[in-house]
Amino acid sequence: MDSIRVFAPATVANVACGFDIFGFAVTSPGDIITLTRRDEPGVVITDIIGDGGRLPREADRNTAGIAIQTYLRHIKRTDVGVEAVLQKQMPLGSGLGSSAASAVAGVYAINELLGRPLTTRQLIPFAMEGERIACGSAHADNVGPSLLGGFVVIRSYSPLDVIRINTPATLFCTLVHPDIEVNTKDARFILKNEVSLKNTITQMGNVAGLIAGLMSPDYDLISRSLVDVIIEPVRSILIPEFNEVKQAAVDNGALGCSISGSGPSMFALSRDAETAERVGAAMQQAFLSVGITSEAYVSEINREGPKVILK
Amino acid sequence: MDSIRVFAPATVANVACGFDIFGFAVTSPGDIITLTRRDEPGVVITDIIGDGGRLPREADRNTAGIAIQTYLRHIKRTDVGVEAVLQKQMPLGSGLGSSAASAVAGVYAINELLGRPLTTRQLIPFAMEGERIACGSAHADNVGPSLLGGFVVIRSYSPLDVIRINTPATLFCTLVHPDIEVNTKDARFILKNEVSLKNTITQMGNVAGLIAGLMSPDYDLISRSLVDVIIEPVRSILIPEFNEVKQAAVDNGALGCSISGSGPSMFALSRDAETAERVGAAMQQAFLSVGITSEAYVSEINREGPKVILK
Repeated sequence: MDSIRVFAPATVANVACGFDIFGFAVTSPGDIITLTRRDEPGVVITDIIGDGGRLPREADRNTAGIAIQTYLRHIKRTDVGVEAVLQKQMPLGSGLGSSAASAVAGVYAINELLGRPLTTRQLIPFAMEGERIACGSAHADNVGPSLLGGFVVIRSYSPLDVIRINTPATLFCTLVHPDIEVNTKDARFILKNEVSLKNTITQMGNVAGLIAGLMSPDYDLISRSLVDVIIEPVRSILIPEFNEVKQAAVDNGALGCSISGSGPSMFALSRDAETAERVGAAMQQAFLSVGITSEAYVSEINREGPKVILK
Repeated sequence: MDSIRVFAPATVANVACGFDIFGFAVTSPGDIITLTRRDEPGVVITDIIGDGGRLPREADRNTAGIAIQTYLRHIKRTDVGVEAVLQKQMPLGSGLGSSAASAVAGVYAINELLGRPLTTRQLIPFAMEGERIACGSAHADNVGPSLLGGFVVIRSYSPLDVIRINTPATLFCTLVHPDIEVNTKDARFILKNEVSLKNTITQMGNVAGLIAGLMSPDYDLISRSLVDVIIEPVRSILIPEFNEVKQAAVDNGALGCSISGSGPSMFALSRDAETAERVGAAMQQAFLSVGITSEAYVSEINREGPKVILK
């Protein structure tokens, strides 16, 4: 095989109560990478489409480039040379796991191109290295679900323990990205380093409830558990009309609604596609009431993760 | 029916990572209450066996008495009169949910005696009122599992949201009660009011992991998740030889080991009865190495909760 094309999905990290530990993949949007072998060793990014020229083209400063290079060093194949074309299909700095999707697409593609020397699960640490350059730390709550698909828990980072959770057969996600930008580093900076024991207990109850609700499945329990008393009250101040947009989602039948990753995108979960569509329209309308345009994506939970696309 | 006799089980609250939200019931030990109708209205405690004379005999200062009285007021049957004999079969102030077992036995018994006007789940608030007099606050993490059986999550207190979690077909609990005493109020007093965000995230990961491990079931995940970075490091200083006893449990095959409730009892979970017995002997030996005698109880998870005993 001389060339391969891979799609990797966007992801919703945190999922209300699960700051830094929960994430799930969607079926749309997502990034596409095309890798083509070349004779000289090393990774060259020949083009990035859809980023408005904002992402670094140097492979060792680009999330996908770093993920591929770290992988090649690990499997001792620095003799391999590839050209990469990255097709960004979602907004940057949006809270949709944009950098994770690129890193996952890159590392999944190179592993397929080389005949799959590692399992998909073994690829997580290399994609996390791509995240490190984008976010300042090697998080796994976007990379994990983008690579494994479905809903995942990052139980621990040392050692890394990524658990896949079964979700109901029908569970739809609405993503709304308002046309404003929040930097992930800023969104992390405003968080407090201490949490009251009372709020910790409340959050743990919701974490337990959400896992039990997803696995049972029990939609009412999912709905009652999609509550974040620690992060959302702080980060939501960075998102204009947050409360109104969330209320619009709930009023239109969403099980719950919160910030996607570090924002400014917001996600909602619904029992069926019709509700998810209606919720999206209502959320967009709420943003528009203060003059903020947005994109909406409605999607099932993506259970398969990255996939090879036939050209 | 003029008389009834009910057993209500001891419980392990907190279960390592789930401070104030997790609890499960065991099959032994537990308390027994006998209620007998009398002509005059009101609740009279005629005897308490096995408490060494330490519990209040006045019905409105006794956990079982208060639970029954609150229940009778709620169902507007203050015309009913009962005499109660309470048989304590576990140590007081032990972290085994002794006051909850008495309150649950009392309220379950009176509800049965009156032909079951309320469901078992509806009895939780009345048993919680019994807890309030014993612990200073109306906790549900012992009362919930003692009444419902099995492993429960207290997702929320306002409104009260008690969720029952499926557990593996074989899961054994070892309880070891060292012959020292810790007051629940003291054990709560030494806790810090603030938790680092880092520890909160770690604890949430373990909470999610334990629920997923129990429901899957996945014993290895249960084992990895039975970790408490918030409460155990503080409360364990009240228990002599805590680290050695815990290590003895793990070295002998326990999935995990931590403080039962607010201590000083310690619990361990194991895959089978043989391991649970061996773990108990090792834990007792570790206490004995510093001259502390103890009682050990080995039991399955109790899935049925309280039960009527034929006389």
